[in-house]
Amino acid sequence: MQRLDAFARHSDEPGRITRLYLSPAHKSAARELCGWMREAGMRTSIDALGTVTGRYESSPAGAPALLIGSHIDSVRDAGRFDGTLGVLAGLTAVEELARAGEKFPFAIEVVAFGDEEGVRFPDTFAGSRALAGIFDAAALAGEDANGISLREALITFGCDPTRIADIPRKRNDVLAYVEAHIEQGPVLESENLPLGIVTAINALKRLSVTVEGEAGHAGTVPMGMRRDALAAAAEMVLAVEKIAAAAGDVVATVGQIETVPGAVNVIAGMTRFTIDVRATGDAARDATVERIEQAIRAIAERRRVTVDLKVNNRTPAAACSPLVIRGLSEAIARQGIAVRMLPSGAGHDAMIVAALCPVGMLFVRCRGGISHNPAESISIEDADMCVRVLLDYIRHFDMSACRA
Amino acid sequence: MQRLDAFARHSDEPGRITRLYLSPAHKSAARELCGWMREAGMRTSIDALGTVTGRYESSPAGAPALLIGSHIDSVRDAGRFDGTLGVLAGLTAVEELARAGEKFPFAIEVVAFGDEEGVRFPDTFAGSRALAGIFDAAALAGEDANGISLREALITFGCDPTRIADIPRKRNDVLAYVEAHIEQGPVLESENLPLGIVTAINALKRLSVTVEGEAGHAGTVPMGMRRDALAAAAEMVLAVEKIAAAAGDVVATVGQIETVPGAVNVIAGMTRFTIDVRATGDAARDATVERIEQAIRAIAERRRVTVDLKVNNRTPAAACSPLVIRGLSEAIARQGIAVRMLPSGAGHDAMIVAALCPVGMLFVRCRGGISHNPAESISIEDADMCVRVLLDYIRHFDMSACRA
Repeated sequence: MQRLDAFARHSDEPGRITRLYLSPAHKSAARELCGWMREAGMRTSIDALGTVTGRYESSPAGAPALLIGSHIDSVRDAGRFDGTLGVLAGLTAVEELARAGEKFPFAIEVVAFGDEEGVRFPDTFAGSRALAGIFDAAALAGEDANGISLREALITFGCDPTRIADIPRKRNDVLAYVEAHIEQGPVLESENLPLGIVTAINALKRLSVTVEGEAGHAGTVPMGMRRDALAAAAEMVLAVEKIAAAAGDVVATVGQIETVPGAVNVIAGMTRFTIDVRATGDAARDATVERIEQAIRAIAERRRVTVDLKVNNRTPAAACSPLVIRGLSEAIARQGIAVRMLPSGAGHDAMIVAALCPVGMLFVRCRGGISHNPAESISIEDADMCVRVLLDYIRHFDMSACRA
Repeated sequence: MQRLDAFARHSDEPGRITRLYLSPAHKSAARELCGWMREAGMRTSIDALGTVTGRYESSPAGAPALLIGSHIDSVRDAGRFDGTLGVLAGLTAVEELARAGEKFPFAIEVVAFGDEEGVRFPDTFAGSRALAGIFDAAALAGEDANGISLREALITFGCDPTRIADIPRKRNDVLAYVEAHIEQGPVLESENLPLGIVTAINALKRLSVTVEGEAGHAGTVPMGMRRDALAAAAEMVLAVEKIAAAAGDVVATVGQIETVPGAVNVIAGMTRFTIDVRATGDAARDATVERIEQAIRAIAERRRVTVDLKVNNRTPAAACSPLVIRGLSEAIARQGIAVRMLPSGAGHDAMIVAALCPVGMLFVRCRGGISHNPAESISIEDADMCVRVLLDYIRHFDMSACRA
């Protein structure tokens, strides 16, 4: 916990935590992390996309590695735990092993990606994509808000973009990837559990909806003669909520809404809103979106408004490996804690690394389910339990099952 | 109609009609209007608040006056008819009388107020308030968006603010005030009627509602654990609609809504929206607002969100005079048209002048109920019928019934 506090100093903005990919704060954070890794007896490197890796050598040396990691970039005005927790928990576990002189027939590599939050550049997950061999070089031309390209930012950071081709790991050299992360949701807290195991990273679809009715004077058009775009949208918002609630393991959110023109005394002629749908599988997601679309079209027809639906974003679900889930479940059970499986509603580097090797995630209870906010909070006991479970998982790790 | 087209040239913005109170366009419009009035044999004046009056003298001279008027200011990007129609219809009626040499034992004054839309200064209805003797001098300090006070704007316009005290009319000198205006609603069009008679200008109440729930990650908070401020607000919007529809002769509108923070992937922590309620009487309005408040509080309680309701605006209903209503009804009936009574959902100078003398309003059918928009449209036949009814009303005007 002291280390998490210390790490929060690496910020691009005074008085709050903002650590954007390839920023000066990211660089100083990466340097400090390398120092801590070396003190723990690890061999460190920073690759051509800024990913920090510390290797705790196997015995005998040169064996494939169990990867433990997460990311060290942050959103603007962030909390101290999102991403950083998973990296420092891995580091702390290795320190413990080094202190005890414990060695394994596999190496352990603690990995700190730098581009998980997607705040700075148009593309995201550069580091994990490259590691998994699915990085698209077109992303190098993407520019941040100041017109600085990813390629330029890499050079400023001290990376050599021509070496990106060296990053991909061979499947033979890695065994699995385990990521600890704050839950960013309220499930574990509400069930009074410190930890949970992620079954899958949810499939996502985002839509934007434009409802067109007829603008009119708020005082002069009788209720029965209105084609009120906002009233229609309100009915649609409730339909989205109801359909998702009925589906189970599906969430759907209308987070933004606006009326055009938008005046206290004008009946809304046009209302726009967004829908964010997530489900544990692509089929469940698509079925929910289908039901939502049908409901929206029925409401539009009944209210004599027109509706335009556009899909803006679509990400497939990424299942966690049954092997890693079983290993984590056994480790949690050995601590005397109930094993709780839950999907991850948010995206993580693990879903990218899944293209390379078996992956799994450990969720840590966070207060109020709050994330992406300075109020992010976890207890010292839960952080400790997270490290214990990682250590137990490592000590019981079934290397042969995870070989290529 | 040609004159309405010509008058549209007086604009503060090229390519569209914007004629704000005391602007150069207002000044050139007032000048042209005075010229037309003089050609029709009227004596013209512009008072200390910019109101243009043309007097068609009685026979014998010096008798009290029947006032016919409306306003010549406009919203930004306005249509050609809102306000201007009533002034030019009065002028055209007087021209017809002058051409035929018809004189009456009462004078006719065509009045063109300049501050009905309330777009420029914080206060509104300066001209009609002063005429009715209820102008509050504090309004002179009110500033427009450029920091120009009403007092300064009056001086620039050529008015002498120290003469405002001369504006109020004595009840003895006026008989009644009749205002023709586009309906700004769809009722007459839907009933295939050219004209309607206003029974009352609706009572108004405006509220702003702030719903506070709990922000959260759109992917990680299960549906059953959410306190979604926008979903709660959506239910409230539908309750507002339902309650107003059930009340009859009441309209209620949610015209603006916003979520805070407002992001596609964040459950709304806070949603704000406005409610505009209008009814033919103060009691009906208050009863509707009461029912809406109860419904909103019940929804908030059930959804475990908090709600803050604030009344921002409250205007009492202004009944039109039974004398004027009867006179207009008879004039319409004599044209062979069905007499349709309807409330006015919008505010008008007539509701201010009601503090001085009997008032009445004639609504003219407008295409699609559209107003405050370049698409405002009326037919030449309806404009002609409006002038015919005014002429008939004048010729049958019961002067003695309307005396003080």
